[in-house]
Amino acid sequence: MTRFLGATQTLVADSLIGFVAAHEELVAFGRAAKFVRRRALHPGKVAVISGGGAGHEPLHCGFVGAGMLDAACTGHVFTSPTPDQILAAMDETDTGAGCLLVVKNYDGDVMNFEMAAEMAAGRHRVETVIVEDDAATGPSVRSRGRRGVAGTVVVEKILGAAAERGEDLAALKALGEGLSGRLRSMGVALRGVTSPDTARATFALGPDEMEIGVGIHGEPGLYRTGRAGPAEIVRLLCEPVLAQLAPLDGARPLLIVNGFGGTPPIELNYAHALARAFLRERGIVPARALVGTFVTSLDMAGLSVTLALLSPAEFELWCAPVTTPALVW
Amino acid sequence: MTRFLGATQTLVADSLIGFVAAHEELVAFGRAAKFVRRRALHPGKVAVISGGGAGHEPLHCGFVGAGMLDAACTGHVFTSPTPDQILAAMDETDTGAGCLLVVKNYDGDVMNFEMAAEMAAGRHRVETVIVEDDAATGPSVRSRGRRGVAGTVVVEKILGAAAERGEDLAALKALGEGLSGRLRSMGVALRGVTSPDTARATFALGPDEMEIGVGIHGEPGLYRTGRAGPAEIVRLLCEPVLAQLAPLDGARPLLIVNGFGGTPPIELNYAHALARAFLRERGIVPARALVGTFVTSLDMAGLSVTLALLSPAEFELWCAPVTTPALVW
Repeated sequence: MTRFLGATQTLVADSLIGFVAAHEELVAFGRAAKFVRRRALHPGKVAVISGGGAGHEPLHCGFVGAGMLDAACTGHVFTSPTPDQILAAMDETDTGAGCLLVVKNYDGDVMNFEMAAEMAAGRHRVETVIVEDDAATGPSVRSRGRRGVAGTVVVEKILGAAAERGEDLAALKALGEGLSGRLRSMGVALRGVTSPDTARATFALGPDEMEIGVGIHGEPGLYRTGRAGPAEIVRLLCEPVLAQLAPLDGARPLLIVNGFGGTPPIELNYAHALARAFLRERGIVPARALVGTFVTSLDMAGLSVTLALLSPAEFELWCAPVTTPALVW
Repeated sequence: MTRFLGATQTLVADSLIGFVAAHEELVAFGRAAKFVRRRALHPGKVAVISGGGAGHEPLHCGFVGAGMLDAACTGHVFTSPTPDQILAAMDETDTGAGCLLVVKNYDGDVMNFEMAAEMAAGRHRVETVIVEDDAATGPSVRSRGRRGVAGTVVVEKILGAAAERGEDLAALKALGEGLSGRLRSMGVALRGVTSPDTARATFALGPDEMEIGVGIHGEPGLYRTGRAGPAEIVRLLCEPVLAQLAPLDGARPLLIVNGFGGTPPIELNYAHALARAFLRERGIVPARALVGTFVTSLDMAGLSVTLALLSPAEFELWCAPVTTPALVW
């Protein structure tokens, strides 16, 4: 409804041109602009490759760089990249140690990354890690299991850091699979996504309504309810996240408060304070927090809370240096 | 209309608690939480201090850290910090070389920072730099001259880097004043700011309208017009910016595309591509660009374009290392 965008045909391609131009010291277009790659590859290291539909920026291209991804493939808005794009990224960034594909759990993404891996047989050694952190979905709700949402940042950062340290393909796959049970997210929307094609919101919320358990593609949530106060909203997000997390002795909790695109920093910081208070009452003190706009759903107003119970080794990988357009430390 | 926020009484304080907790390795609260300061001060260096009303996050607290600000004072939403807050920041961060105050050009901010400087007489050497980059305003429109908007990031970064290199108070003031004529911004809104007090938009735009020349406090713009296509919108922002910039031989142009809070990265990157195309047609190639959400107006949908014609020395200061919550390189 309130979008700046007009030219839906070229929106994704033009936006990527603007992105690469803003970060040309870190990233470059791959062949025929099929993907975005790290400017300087690191020979002998496993190539970590991800991707998905556009509309989730800065995910995934914003995480291409030293200590995280080697390449990211972007499809049309909310549409998987093609196997051809993914294969091109493998061809250009595999320097001999193989490719690790990090894939959010959606039918289209899983299918196209699988197809690319099959096409790569004989040319690349390939392993795949599926991200499935959305506490609002599960095997009982969707045949493919839980959706991949903001927890994708955790998986890409930790696997990227491990690859940078020289871990091999099998070790990276085991690391990614080990994270799966200890990583959950839950989101709330106060205004739906404006579809670039129709300029209409994908679901309409009244001024006194909110949608709990939303995805990042304009999917309706688990349920709609009356607008609660901020502390209550945060409770409705944190409780299902905590309930689904597999406990881990000696865990270093990582907390992420992620904006969906239409929510400003003042609100995200506020939600972060509330989430910390909620966790503190339950004896949980985050060892590190990340607050900002990392996995969006175009201009959706709302946010998600992610909690990861990391092992000390995983936590060290989270804290390792990273230099990407959207994450630097 | 679509806000997450509820508790307006404690919103700013709670949001700052969340902010400091997320970045505790870089920043800390000053005495009585009156301001946010750099965790590790750098003795003998001029203290660079800024501040303003809340609602513009990550400005100013997000720019506290090595290579930029020593302290930032936050008032209530769209309300200047008090002289008492500013004086407390000076007392705690002046390590002997004096204080440089960076102030956006609004009556309330200018008055309160002036009052703090007077109260500091005999205790601190103080100089002030006023930021006035908004091409939509000027001496003919408002008695105080042009408003300070997204160009504030340029002034804070360059003066912060110069202070870090040991420049003294007089040199920093001259550097700041020198930038003034070569720094301009212009903004567009597609949806007004939702006031936290009333939960209503400060100005109402129809779905086919846009407001050109908006400020960052919900002020209406220079004019309202029908919704144009993206390239036309960018032209309406870039033309007045270019027209008002004092030329500089050998300038290194810096381009900023800044989101106002309710606009996601995909749109900002797209606008960046369009702004580059506009400038290229006029023979201007940005030496560096910054694209993201840096100076907000709560959840306003829209963006601004800033252009700075930097001297090679200023450009080097822009590129110098910085480690703050919102800007790292």
